[in-house]
Amino acid sequence: MVKKIAILGSTGSIGKQTLEVIEELGSGYEVVALTAGINDQLLGEQVEKFRPELAVLSEAEAAKRLSNRANLPGCKVEGGREGQLTAATWPSADLVVMAQVGFSGFEPLVAALEEGKTVALANKESLVVGGEILKRLGLLDQGKILPVDSEHSAIWQCLGCSSPGQVSRVFLTASGGPFFGRDQKALQEVRPQQALKHPNWDMGGKITIDSATMMNKGLEVIEAMWLFGLSLEQIKVVIHRQSIVHSMVEYIDGSILAQMGMPDMRLPIQYALTYPEREFNRFEKYDPFGKKLDFEQPDWDNFPCLGLAYDAARTGGTMPAVLNCANEVAVEHFLRERISFTDIPAVIERVMSSHETVHNPEVEDVLEADRWCRRQTKNLIDQFYYGDVKGR
Amino acid sequence: MVKKIAILGSTGSIGKQTLEVIEELGSGYEVVALTAGINDQLLGEQVEKFRPELAVLSEAEAAKRLSNRANLPGCKVEGGREGQLTAATWPSADLVVMAQVGFSGFEPLVAALEEGKTVALANKESLVVGGEILKRLGLLDQGKILPVDSEHSAIWQCLGCSSPGQVSRVFLTASGGPFFGRDQKALQEVRPQQALKHPNWDMGGKITIDSATMMNKGLEVIEAMWLFGLSLEQIKVVIHRQSIVHSMVEYIDGSILAQMGMPDMRLPIQYALTYPEREFNRFEKYDPFGKKLDFEQPDWDNFPCLGLAYDAARTGGTMPAVLNCANEVAVEHFLRERISFTDIPAVIERVMSSHETVHNPEVEDVLEADRWCRRQTKNLIDQFYYGDVKGR
Repeated sequence: MVKKIAILGSTGSIGKQTLEVIEELGSGYEVVALTAGINDQLLGEQVEKFRPELAVLSEAEAAKRLSNRANLPGCKVEGGREGQLTAATWPSADLVVMAQVGFSGFEPLVAALEEGKTVALANKESLVVGGEILKRLGLLDQGKILPVDSEHSAIWQCLGCSSPGQVSRVFLTASGGPFFGRDQKALQEVRPQQALKHPNWDMGGKITIDSATMMNKGLEVIEAMWLFGLSLEQIKVVIHRQSIVHSMVEYIDGSILAQMGMPDMRLPIQYALTYPEREFNRFEKYDPFGKKLDFEQPDWDNFPCLGLAYDAARTGGTMPAVLNCANEVAVEHFLRERISFTDIPAVIERVMSSHETVHNPEVEDVLEADRWCRRQTKNLIDQFYYGDVKGR
Repeated sequence: MVKKIAILGSTGSIGKQTLEVIEELGSGYEVVALTAGINDQLLGEQVEKFRPELAVLSEAEAAKRLSNRANLPGCKVEGGREGQLTAATWPSADLVVMAQVGFSGFEPLVAALEEGKTVALANKESLVVGGEILKRLGLLDQGKILPVDSEHSAIWQCLGCSSPGQVSRVFLTASGGPFFGRDQKALQEVRPQQALKHPNWDMGGKITIDSATMMNKGLEVIEAMWLFGLSLEQIKVVIHRQSIVHSMVEYIDGSILAQMGMPDMRLPIQYALTYPEREFNRFEKYDPFGKKLDFEQPDWDNFPCLGLAYDAARTGGTMPAVLNCANEVAVEHFLRERISFTDIPAVIERVMSSHETVHNPEVEDVLEADRWCRRQTKNLIDQFYYGDVKGR
């Protein structure tokens, strides 16, 4: 039987690698919908190659350019937020891969899950922001979300078919990013070009910066909490510089299962696509001979984003949305060299402390917290770092 | 529901630790049969404490001494080989723990499996010797053998509920024993007291020597082959000095699952007892923080027992029985300081090369190969090392 796949965010890093995996898998997998933001050029090439039934670009102009291309027979083109929701609930799709960047993935995720779709989730922000709502809606407990993040895929694989209540702790591994071991003074000097170089993983820009600040791991802690029904206290972050052990699960009897492999996002992507089966591939294999693996405590003082994520999760309600949004805005300003690397956690902490948390939020509360946070973070940066309410 | 346990070999290292685990688990587990060889003193104490329905000693005199004790109400006492078979098939037992040392575990294993019992198997020799017969009898494919060896328990846990055919390789970890890194000259000087000290594991005498020669790992390779239906080529031995990773399973997609924990036999014993559940215990837990794990190639040249085991498995038939028996006899003579540490593989190799393998053996062929091998090995040692056909 052919498995039909919709990919939301197909021109990003995870989206492109998903298409690569589908090509490597060969027959048995078919692409039925592709979506992107504004990159009509690349989406057009993907459409020509994979012949989906639907292609969506969030930006209306880009969608128009795409539909003007002559060679898209049998492919419906849509634009805007509505188009993303159409793709997320596309009738023929057996599996919806959610590979968008940031908070924009939240509404399509809700739509897909409400439609009963199985989702391969790479967009961690939507779970960070909306986990509490998804839980309340009963959308988390149906085994319909297959994790794509390497750490969560690892936990999922280590859990296998174990009974609930058998897990004592989860060790979420973190490479530590390019600046692990540096002190506050050295971190102040970090430039975007340095932060964009990850020692082990080849990933998109936003997530690479999040890796360098450890916010990525913080978001993953919250993601793991919702995905696997864990308490925050059960999730331990452990620095593992080699990025070979992708995470570990400790059971109540003291037995630990660890999932290992090359740091290659195509492996967890493939597992989500082929689950519950596994398929052979020609990707490089890890060989343990002559190798060392080591594990250290995170540096909580010099990488405060990790602690902020635990704080936000502990507060709950709309606070994780504010954590995520303040981080998105701060990273954007860091990349534009408007704030320094160490300003990122400082900005997030200030925005969080000025937020009045709405508990048991509805979708609209989360959307409003996000809108508030975007204004608030930008204003804070403009005022605090530039003494200017309008920004520069 | 109470799980009723029979333990064959309850006065040995694994047997004693099994009773310790049952005590730690508390209610829910009941001991219904205990067997030992000659140690009526300890078996008597165990009977008084655990109140089984049956107690067996292989030696008739020891059985008589035990039954003369006044305080064994409601406990039937038997002796000899027949008694071991009675215990292996004891009607009320839900689980039969096979913790005997050496080849004596073979017949009770066959009897228990033929009776449809679930067996927790610590006695690797019986599987090494009789794996081919058990396979032919269809006794291996019913999921009735639960491994107790830490490496095989690790593989079993890593396999979880994966489909057959998804495994590409198994990495069987080995501590390397106390002499890893030594050359031939240094190994010649090794005395029994040194070889009896294992760096990580607290085990019985025979298996500790087997660890030092690497024969233990060789026997485990053959055991893994039969337990998990693997080809010899799929099983890779990897030296892991810390004895924390107890083995790893590599799947066809390149994902590796590893099972980790303290080097404490009570953990795999407990898992076999509680399977498919897991239970909390107060045994020391492994904490990865600040730890290093490393992996190396085995030293095939200085530890030839490992290669001999692969040779025996490749030949099949009665050859693994000869490997096992020649090893038992050679180790015994090493412990009596009649041969040196490096003579152990030399003796085994000579006996193997003088053996005419019986292919597709029946039980009687294996028993005959064992008898032949015991004579042959003893004669070889007497003649070759002492120039004396009668021994000393």
